[in-house]
Amino acid sequence: MQKLEVVILAAGMGTRMKSKLPKVLHPIAGKPMVQHAIDAAAPLNPHRTHLVYGHGAEQLQAALGHNAVTWALQAKQLGTGHAVNMADWDDDSTVLVLYGDVPLIQTETLQRLLAVQPDDGIGLLSVELDNPTGYGRIVREHGRVTAIVEQKDASASQLAITEVNTGILVAPGKALKSWLASLSNDNAQGEYYLTDVIAMAAQAGGVETAHPDTAIEVEGANNRLQLAALERAYQARAAERLMLAGVTLLDPSRFDLRGEVTVGSDIIIDANVVIEGTVTIEDDVQIGAGCQLKDCHIGRGSVLKPYTIVEGARVGELCTAGPFARLRPGAELVEDSHIGNFVEMKKARLGKGSKANHLAYIGDAEVGSKVNIGAGTITCNYDGANKHLTVIEDDVFVGSDTQLVAPVTIARGATIAAGSTITKNVAEGELVLTRTKQKHLANWQRPVKKRS
Amino acid sequence: MQKLEVVILAAGMGTRMKSKLPKVLHPIAGKPMVQHAIDAAAPLNPHRTHLVYGHGAEQLQAALGHNAVTWALQAKQLGTGHAVNMADWDDDSTVLVLYGDVPLIQTETLQRLLAVQPDDGIGLLSVELDNPTGYGRIVREHGRVTAIVEQKDASASQLAITEVNTGILVAPGKALKSWLASLSNDNAQGEYYLTDVIAMAAQAGGVETAHPDTAIEVEGANNRLQLAALERAYQARAAERLMLAGVTLLDPSRFDLRGEVTVGSDIIIDANVVIEGTVTIEDDVQIGAGCQLKDCHIGRGSVLKPYTIVEGARVGELCTAGPFARLRPGAELVEDSHIGNFVEMKKARLGKGSKANHLAYIGDAEVGSKVNIGAGTITCNYDGANKHLTVIEDDVFVGSDTQLVAPVTIARGATIAAGSTITKNVAEGELVLTRTKQKHLANWQRPVKKRS
Amino acid sequence: MQKLEVVILAAGMGTRMKSKLPKVLHPIAGKPMVQHAIDAAAPLNPHRTHLVYGHGAEQLQAALGHNAVTWALQAKQLGTGHAVNMADWDDDSTVLVLYGDVPLIQTETLQRLLAVQPDDGIGLLSVELDNPTGYGRIVREHGRVTAIVEQKDASASQLAITEVNTGILVAPGKALKSWLASLSNDNAQGEYYLTDVIAMAAQAGGVETAHPDTAIEVEGANNRLQLAALERAYQARAAERLMLAGVTLLDPSRFDLRGEVTVGSDIIIDANVVIEGTVTIEDDVQIGAGCQLKDCHIGRGSVLKPYTIVEGARVGELCTAGPFARLRPGAELVEDSHIGNFVEMKKARLGKGSKANHLAYIGDAEVGSKVNIGAGTITCNYDGANKHLTVIEDDVFVGSDTQLVAPVTIARGATIAAGSTITKNVAEGELVLTRTKQKHLANWQRPVKKRS
Repeated sequence: MQKLEVVILAAGMGTRMKSKLPKVLHPIAGKPMVQHAIDAAAPLNPHRTHLVYGHGAEQLQAALGHNAVTWALQAKQLGTGHAVNMADWDDDSTVLVLYGDVPLIQTETLQRLLAVQPDDGIGLLSVELDNPTGYGRIVREHGRVTAIVEQKDASASQLAITEVNTGILVAPGKALKSWLASLSNDNAQGEYYLTDVIAMAAQAGGVETAHPDTAIEVEGANNRLQLAALERAYQARAAERLMLAGVTLLDPSRFDLRGEVTVGSDIIIDANVVIEGTVTIEDDVQIGAGCQLKDCHIGRGSVLKPYTIVEGARVGELCTAGPFARLRPGAELVEDSHIGNFVEMKKARLGKGSKANHLAYIGDAEVGSKVNIGAGTITCNYDGANKHLTVIEDDVFVGSDTQLVAPVTIARGATIAAGSTITKNVAEGELVLTRTKQKHLANWQRPVKKRS
Repeated sequence: MQKLEVVILAAGMGTRMKSKLPKVLHPIAGKPMVQHAIDAAAPLNPHRTHLVYGHGAEQLQAALGHNAVTWALQAKQLGTGHAVNMADWDDDSTVLVLYGDVPLIQTETLQRLLAVQPDDGIGLLSVELDNPTGYGRIVREHGRVTAIVEQKDASASQLAITEVNTGILVAPGKALKSWLASLSNDNAQGEYYLTDVIAMAAQAGGVETAHPDTAIEVEGANNRLQLAALERAYQARAAERLMLAGVTLLDPSRFDLRGEVTVGSDIIIDANVVIEGTVTIEDDVQIGAGCQLKDCHIGRGSVLKPYTIVEGARVGELCTAGPFARLRPGAELVEDSHIGNFVEMKKARLGKGSKANHLAYIGDAEVGSKVNIGAGTITCNYDGANKHLTVIEDDVFVGSDTQLVAPVTIARGATIAAGSTITKNVAEGELVLTRTKQKHLANWQRPVKKRS
Repeated sequence: MQKLEVVILAAGMGTRMKSKLPKVLHPIAGKPMVQHAIDAAAPLNPHRTHLVYGHGAEQLQAALGHNAVTWALQAKQLGTGHAVNMADWDDDSTVLVLYGDVPLIQTETLQRLLAVQPDDGIGLLSVELDNPTGYGRIVREHGRVTAIVEQKDASASQLAITEVNTGILVAPGKALKSWLASLSNDNAQGEYYLTDVIAMAAQAGGVETAHPDTAIEVEGANNRLQLAALERAYQARAAERLMLAGVTLLDPSRFDLRGEVTVGSDIIIDANVVIEGTVTIEDDVQIGAGCQLKDCHIGRGSVLKPYTIVEGARVGELCTAGPFARLRPGAELVEDSHIGNFVEMKKARLGKGSKANHLAYIGDAEVGSKVNIGAGTITCNYDGANKHLTVIEDDVFVGSDTQLVAPVTIARGATIAAGSTITKNVAEGELVLTRTKQKHLANWQRPVKKRS
């Protein structure tokens, strides 16, 4: 294996984004564009990854600081050749140049590119476009690349060339340094163009080309219209990958993956589902329309009905949740557990065969098995200063509209009557209630509507 | 009318589906692919429909057993010709061959196909493709079909043919038997190909072709990517049909019909609505974004606000429901009835002009007319063992956060004060309450936040 | 500036719409098609806008009466020439003819059209179509327009013309009157065609053409399939405009704007958001999937989590709402205020730093700052006849499942215990509760499930 150093250009202003955020931090699938480039190169095991930045150093370091990158400041924007030159690689390294605003590049493509690079020459990623207007054309003589000619400098016959430059290339470290040192800025913009090293390499070790699978891999985003196009291309690819792995997506164009998902077999995902963070979905799970899953595990055979939101939670096997249910961080449905509409769980476990089917808030609670939690039940876990635990043991029946004022324990088999405010522990098998006599006043005169 | 027998090939493994489910049971619009094929042929009044199956007999019979099909086992997968031969039709029948993984075929197309079939010859469904690569080409001499040639056997000039075989054909029962008996498996795969009967028929009664309206009709699904493509094509057709019938779909590409819907005039359906089962929607209904309707009736002029879920329920005229409302089986909004956000109804009737506008659970209840049900009201219908009925007569006012512990009856014109737990019947015109004196403790010291 | 009069043809039956609504009232982006035409012409400051109507006068006047239009009845539908002639403009006016079912026409296009009109001649809007079949072709001699020839009357060479008539034109008022007076109805339909004035104008002052930016601008809707196509084209344009202004749309094809939105910078809008009426969104706002915003203001840095519905409400800076929250008319989150799942607010203010995070109804209320409203809290604002106000001062803690029976005031720093029904005012710093002793019955025998 060669010693590889990656140089990622991330210094562009991105004015057309109309944003306070540096362009390369704009996300695709919830992750900064430049992070996609870093991640695409990571499997190549680079010795170092250089990030050439200009504006927004603080924002960049906050967003990307967890990466082991070498920061290289390009104080003035004097062109792509100048930008690459800001990075300081070892002479004996091979240098791969990527772009922080070209997020869809694939590792496999980069591997092919590395494979074609000639000794002492450049491996260049080029792509065939139906409409090459505006792009630098790959000029070949007898099939060998000799130069890249820009649109404005191209002859009529060169304009007809449909193979264009992507800017992504790989070069020997030492030679690249000397080529960059030879660049001239004697052009309209007064900039140093990386493109110009191609002609130099053609004179030296030669230039060989590799190609991406699809043109979208090498497209960049300069405004939010292009950002959205890349987002949808990313999502189409993610959907395709899941379908080929055996997941049924009822509408692949209404699916969003913003993270990583591990899937079992025979999963069915309805329209408008969003998956974020790190999610595992086991066999035979059904996910209803409009569900949102983030950093969670969904166990075998479970059913999420429409508009269920699960975050930082665990759903065991054969559970059902929703519609309109919300599992917040620390929630767990153990097994064959059921939560229904307008139910919220947080830091709470609902045991095997237990149910909370309607309008309830279960927070900071441990609920055993075969428990029935009535509609409108609320665990009063917060006293305004601290959170307290509610323990509900197996086989308890909690009547509707009960408040469980924590800390409180309801022992096995107890029954709580509807409308109770429970502040003290309840013993095994007890019926407990806090009920007032029902008063009846005959012939009640209702209020009368006031003139307004 | 000829005596028709339909043979549907449904024995394929479907390995690329990566599924425990036999391929032909994978659903399009909520219905197994093979059921679509059965249903497309049904209006032709076939004498018998033969289902040639291989794997997953139990699953197939569970899913399809309600159809009056004749099961034909193909124990070994020896090719399409062999598969058709597993069916046992009468000599005097006309035989129509369909495919369990080609679900979008239209009855009208089959009718055209039957119409072109020559006596003692074959009616063959062929289709023009822009890119015929991989398909069997229809070879014609002087305009008459003489054979089908497979991709790998085709000459350069044959490869240029864009009319391809769909595999769907109709043939005389007796002749088809003899042609199938003459098939050879002397080929690379060692299989008997149905395709080879075409050349035989061309020598006998001839081959005439008919064509589908669109190529998607004859496409099959071998993986979930293709399954999704068929699903979206089905849905596009369903949306188009509804729009031409006079329904406004605000976004036809975000609409799903998984069943049958009967529509009146001037219905407006917003984006991301899903209709399942058997649904009737009367004139002037408005259905908000993200609603889900299953096996229900929506009456004239009613409005379902966004994210309303209706299943097994009936909405009368001029009602409103939602947003975030849920009508479960047995729920009925009678007329000019209103349910609002975070309200669930099940096996309950809400009378004319009655309202439950906020956060409520109404289950096993009969609610009269002009009743106002306050926020947070819950019918406590379940005692842990049995369900009981709540009766609320006309003109009752139920204060907020009331629990109605069933069985209980609130008579006409009664008023229930907020926060009451009602366990006994309430008489006409009474005010009823279960209230405790409000205690005040001055200078209360709140808990202090503990260090954790 | 010329004196301009606009004539909008809006008399068509629209039979294929299958609707009780006149065709031109069918909405695009929530606004009648004909209103789009009126609005596109408005920036041209027309002296008068004539609306030529036929059917549905009452419905038209109800929907459009707020426009200062001159109504012109076309009692019999005798063709477009006849329709235009129903309007009565001044001789010294320039007349612009538009169509009530062609809603996507842009003001800039009309300005270009006005600019090309020759003195005493016609400015005609034409468009190039890949497939001109069915449209009237623009016939030119030596580059100058001489006539429009309809499909059925066209010669083979004329059929090859791809420049077609849109029907939109501008003409001198006096000349147009005389040309219309010269029209003949000697044709198969017995109608007077506006098209025929082109040849007359060509003989007089000449005909010059302008073109729309895209063909969709001049497309009409005759059925709901075409209506949906226009709707999506409108929405694609709206999405593109927002993205170029610096808004991130995670999926531009799942976005709907049915009104006007004013946006700040760095706003992120997830899929399936609908914006209606007049909406302002300030910098750094995040809007989750499936949110619906109508006539509201969202302040800087606020976050609307998925499935939040805001209508007629105001969200201040740095607030969060949702998921599944609903702000109804008159609701206000002041600043750093939080409402969570299954919470409804109406005519209520939630002060700085205050929270209502779970299952609550807050209506007709003024809530101060740093207030904590527990789960299940309900303001009982309605006594069956009148609405009353709840006042909650700063730093109050409202325990879960509390009913606040309005009118009632909870003074600063008070604490309400969980499960209380508050009917009387609470003084500063008090703890208040309405609690009954918790009764325990040992060895409770639960009901047993009955055989049904």
